[in-house]
Amino acid sequence: MADIGIIMGSDSDLPVMSEAAKVLDDFGVEYELTIVSAHRTPDRMYNYAKSAKDRGLKLIIAGAGGSAHLPGMTAAITTLPVIGVPIKTKALSGVDSLYSIVQMPAGIPVATVAINGAKNAGLLAVQILAAFDDKLAEKVNSYKEELDKSVIDKADRLEKIGYNEYLNN
Amino acid sequence: MADIGIIMGSDSDLPVMSEAAKVLDDFGVEYELTIVSAHRTPDRMYNYAKSAKDRGLKLIIAGAGGSAHLPGMTAAITTLPVIGVPIKTKALSGVDSLYSIVQMPAGIPVATVAINGAKNAGLLAVQILAAFDDKLAEKVNSYKEELDKSVIDKADRLEKIGYNEYLNN
Amino acid sequence: MADIGIIMGSDSDLPVMSEAAKVLDDFGVEYELTIVSAHRTPDRMYNYAKSAKDRGLKLIIAGAGGSAHLPGMTAAITTLPVIGVPIKTKALSGVDSLYSIVQMPAGIPVATVAINGAKNAGLLAVQILAAFDDKLAEKVNSYKEELDKSVIDKADRLEKIGYNEYLNN
Amino acid sequence: MADIGIIMGSDSDLPVMSEAAKVLDDFGVEYELTIVSAHRTPDRMYNYAKSAKDRGLKLIIAGAGGSAHLPGMTAAITTLPVIGVPIKTKALSGVDSLYSIVQMPAGIPVATVAINGAKNAGLLAVQILAAFDDKLAEKVNSYKEELDKSVIDKADRLEKIGYNEYLNN
Amino acid sequence: MADIGIIMGSDSDLPVMSEAAKVLDDFGVEYELTIVSAHRTPDRMYNYAKSAKDRGLKLIIAGAGGSAHLPGMTAAITTLPVIGVPIKTKALSGVDSLYSIVQMPAGIPVATVAINGAKNAGLLAVQILAAFDDKLAEKVNSYKEELDKSVIDKADRLEKIGYNEYLNN
Amino acid sequence: MADIGIIMGSDSDLPVMSEAAKVLDDFGVEYELTIVSAHRTPDRMYNYAKSAKDRGLKLIIAGAGGSAHLPGMTAAITTLPVIGVPIKTKALSGVDSLYSIVQMPAGIPVATVAINGAKNAGLLAVQILAAFDDKLAEKVNSYKEELDKSVIDKADRLEKIGYNEYLNN
Amino acid sequence: MADIGIIMGSDSDLPVMSEAAKVLDDFGVEYELTIVSAHRTPDRMYNYAKSAKDRGLKLIIAGAGGSAHLPGMTAAITTLPVIGVPIKTKALSGVDSLYSIVQMPAGIPVATVAINGAKNAGLLAVQILAAFDDKLAEKVNSYKEELDKSVIDKADRLEKIGYNEYLNN
Amino acid sequence: MADIGIIMGSDSDLPVMSEAAKVLDDFGVEYELTIVSAHRTPDRMYNYAKSAKDRGLKLIIAGAGGSAHLPGMTAAITTLPVIGVPIKTKALSGVDSLYSIVQMPAGIPVATVAINGAKNAGLLAVQILAAFDDKLAEKVNSYKEELDKSVIDKADRLEKIGYNEYLNN
Repeated sequence: MADIGIIMGSDSDLPVMSEAAKVLDDFGVEYELTIVSAHRTPDRMYNYAKSAKDRGLKLIIAGAGGSAHLPGMTAAITTLPVIGVPIKTKALSGVDSLYSIVQMPAGIPVATVAINGAKNAGLLAVQILAAFDDKLAEKVNSYKEELDKSVIDKADRLEKIGYNEYLNN
Repeated sequence: MADIGIIMGSDSDLPVMSEAAKVLDDFGVEYELTIVSAHRTPDRMYNYAKSAKDRGLKLIIAGAGGSAHLPGMTAAITTLPVIGVPIKTKALSGVDSLYSIVQMPAGIPVATVAINGAKNAGLLAVQILAAFDDKLAEKVNSYKEELDKSVIDKADRLEKIGYNEYLNN
Repeated sequence: MADIGIIMGSDSDLPVMSEAAKVLDDFGVEYELTIVSAHRTPDRMYNYAKSAKDRGLKLIIAGAGGSAHLPGMTAAITTLPVIGVPIKTKALSGVDSLYSIVQMPAGIPVATVAINGAKNAGLLAVQILAAFDDKLAEKVNSYKEELDKSVIDKADRLEKIGYNEYLNN
Repeated sequence: MADIGIIMGSDSDLPVMSEAAKVLDDFGVEYELTIVSAHRTPDRMYNYAKSAKDRGLKLIIAGAGGSAHLPGMTAAITTLPVIGVPIKTKALSGVDSLYSIVQMPAGIPVATVAINGAKNAGLLAVQILAAFDDKLAEKVNSYKEELDKSVIDKADRLEKIGYNEYLNN
Repeated sequence: MADIGIIMGSDSDLPVMSEAAKVLDDFGVEYELTIVSAHRTPDRMYNYAKSAKDRGLKLIIAGAGGSAHLPGMTAAITTLPVIGVPIKTKALSGVDSLYSIVQMPAGIPVATVAINGAKNAGLLAVQILAAFDDKLAEKVNSYKEELDKSVIDKADRLEKIGYNEYLNN
Repeated sequence: MADIGIIMGSDSDLPVMSEAAKVLDDFGVEYELTIVSAHRTPDRMYNYAKSAKDRGLKLIIAGAGGSAHLPGMTAAITTLPVIGVPIKTKALSGVDSLYSIVQMPAGIPVATVAINGAKNAGLLAVQILAAFDDKLAEKVNSYKEELDKSVIDKADRLEKIGYNEYLNN
Repeated sequence: MADIGIIMGSDSDLPVMSEAAKVLDDFGVEYELTIVSAHRTPDRMYNYAKSAKDRGLKLIIAGAGGSAHLPGMTAAITTLPVIGVPIKTKALSGVDSLYSIVQMPAGIPVATVAINGAKNAGLLAVQILAAFDDKLAEKVNSYKEELDKSVIDKADRLEKIGYNEYLNN
Repeated sequence: MADIGIIMGSDSDLPVMSEAAKVLDDFGVEYELTIVSAHRTPDRMYNYAKSAKDRGLKLIIAGAGGSAHLPGMTAAITTLPVIGVPIKTKALSGVDSLYSIVQMPAGIPVATVAINGAKNAGLLAVQILAAFDDKLAEKVNSYKEELDKSVIDKADRLEKIGYNEYLNN
């Protein structure tokens, strides 16, 4: 049974939103992933959000761009926490998406991540699950240690070979 | 029977949104006015939008601020044209509202007016009705002539008394 | 006889503005399409707007970029409703166009759609006509059902084959 | 034992951040609340974040303004989920705070809410706990029903007495 | 006979725009000042701009706010140079006015000054006249020397009494 | 003897700024064109601006990008009118240039044109000269008539062949 | 002999800029403070900057608003490091000042602090001197410890009395 | 022994940040260069900043993008002056980086340069050292003279061959 639902407004958001799925795959977290458009499939969105908790989901990751209503409307209908991913847009670079998602009125929060920050949406979902799951928390810890190590490895190499050689290889 | 529905996300929007109602009053256009929150009353919004056409409405004016989803979600559910009014907000001055309302995806337009432009939302509604109603069109014409005349009267006075006296009276 | 007038400030706007025409073609709505520049052909603009209603137009779609004055000036001269399309610009990505079109003063509204949102301008025009034309309203309804269906088809496919295969095909 | 840690960069943030505490009070969720400045007390911040999980916290709410580093740095040090509240600022109205908090790099998410959205930070924390606590989930449900009801009550009153009387009382 | 025409879209712009007139008064330059609204009095604007050169004007100063079309439309109709003054607005602080005025398309320039910069519009007009009038050029020179002197006087006083006394007196 | 001085902060601005020169060539206006950097050649800038009027210049066109100080500093030193051209920049698209040039303090105006609007800077210079030169004014008139005619020709062609053929040829 | 020069474009900047002086007073650093306007006193600015190093200054703090050219022009003329303070402005809140100061071209840096950040400009100057002066470095260290302590004192009080009492006293 | 530390949040910042190193190479200033991530290696950052002064560094140049916390956090931990380089980002072009770095709270300054302005960060570091080192000051002077000369050489060539030939060669 899936813990996390990943939804997006359009399949054009999939290259970005699939990064959330990849993170969940990496951490071994069960999820479902589909397309739900607030504007083009309002009934589907309503039903998806309304049934989410009963279907066993713990939280929902929703990505959308422009007048990005999917995360906020999902949050309006479910009691589950909703993570919103503002998708970068052509004219306004995702500032429209960001404002549409993050500036929610009192009463209906959306946990917003960076523009195109789907990977972090996945990690945030994992961290939330991990706050109630010691084994998963351990994995998060290891993940962070690997992040740390990968920076240090690069730093060591840069310090050793210098920026010229680093840039040219 | 009302031709126009005026809705807003919160009664804090009423001081602005009532200007749309006043215009409709002035032009003798029937309307209904109420509060419908996309986020706090999603079922009510769904039902309002779904039944709007069958209740005889010709178009809907929707005002909202911040993550302003009401106009776009209403437009998603009804086939009627929706006019969106971005309400000015404390932190972002209504740029958040404007972007949330105007940047709708292909397929679901919202006819957006200026930030806090509820008066113009009312006028736009009147102009739309007037495109199919010669008597109302005549009233719009007169309204525009009065606008013109009121500017010319002020201009005449300014030219006559000069800016110093004009500013001090 | 045309119901809708589509005008734009320059033929460089045609790739965007033709999307409005395509929508009207799809819905079988009669329109006229031409170039009218507020800045380079002010007389032409004046005459176009002044005669629009008498020529039988029901509404005007006007696209312009930068200091985008065409929609607002057309709205100043005619009593018909005007839909404004802010064209994306090189330096300011259309924020200049958007502000120039949407921030109209009280008395002269322009129904503004998204930056480069000509398709939605066409749809909005159709929805306005459809509010007074049941047959056209039926077509709008079908259009929305197809939008809904096309999302669901994609969702089904995505759920079936997974994001990896979906992205790679 | 506290489930939630609420921290802020300065006691000038307390009028805003106390709204998060009030929500937790209302829902009967245990929390600790204090001042931790990333810039002026980096050691304290480090120790706070490092020990948070071992002290039993499930998540941290961090508010900061301007170059708002507290939420992101806390998230860098702990594995717990961190909710960031961008505080409104004098010159840039909190856009600086918002960008500093939400635009986190891949690997270190911060769950960002609206500018000055501390109340929603509290609610988001409650919803996260509630995803693992049916009794709390029931309270969230009731809260949402009350939100819904309070809108409907206002709508009923507005529909009954009209906007003029509503505005004047 | 007036050399300069000062026009503005509304008498609400007069407190700002009268600063341009005051500068011209100070320099002894003849001007006419009136209200001309591009949106509410398009015919008046057309006639004003069309006849400006024949009436002997050398240039036009035009102030407007929001969708500020007056300077650009005046420039479209006359061959005289037009100086545009973006008026500060409530929601967007005059960024809308600035973009509407300055981002003119190739072929139709508007000489734009700062938001609410009517005083500088007056000075720019004087400097343009002075480029062809040695006596006026001498006055501009004296004006600049006075500016310089007034700064130096303040600097002397500040250096003498220190910032504490300067601020407290 | 040159009437107009065209200066720019760097030879990287030449592709844009040469458009001003081309306009002056077209109108047969004498000009001088060179590179003057406020930041890298402050002495040269000082001398250029200080001697401009005595060298017979009537006005100066100055283009610069980023912290664009050249137009404003030139205006500070000379009594001639200065036209500023904000050059588009990589990170901020010329908003930095625009704000640096247009937001001049009271006392020192810069006549600002659009971002990268060097062509219009040239035209504005011509229009300023033409306000005092009937023959040049006649040329400006012809230029505007040609602009008008070129739009009408395109409009005729578009109306005749339709948007599909127009776009494909 | 003064180590630091503090200059500002206008005495209206003094309430902000005097905070830099106060910091230097607190740290016992010698400074001179005066008004130098890039736009209204270009000669004075030139001479100030040109002679700064020979007068013994180690660095210059320059504050300015709007088209804020003083810091960058000073940096163009001297080889001393220049710290720029963007002053908050009425229309654009100091974004114009910030962009004018920080976006300097390669070759001429300005060390920019926050909008209205004169206090930090003073501290930065102290830190720069302290990098070459162990006694002053010790004072900076103490200053930072006091900052730390003052936060901890407030945190202790808040933790002890709770947010309600803290806010009400 | 190194005088300057150059750090960056990620090796993806190296192409930009290496420009700071090149400047120091050109001026013969000793530096160390490495990768330190505030978010992924908080311990490393803490230790780096804490030991910087004792290792003999005089100042630190820190580059970071997005939620750019590295410069500010480094400044929080050390008493050395810190120069911050906002790295350009994909969605927000570095405005996020700029705001995160420059808007530091009172007490903890960061000397911010332009977006991607690493070269100027290097120069600023040199100028700071040069304020206490006459030999280096002489080199800065020569550098500025070369800047000046290189502009004048280009100007001479442009004046000689004209813009057409200059652009085509």
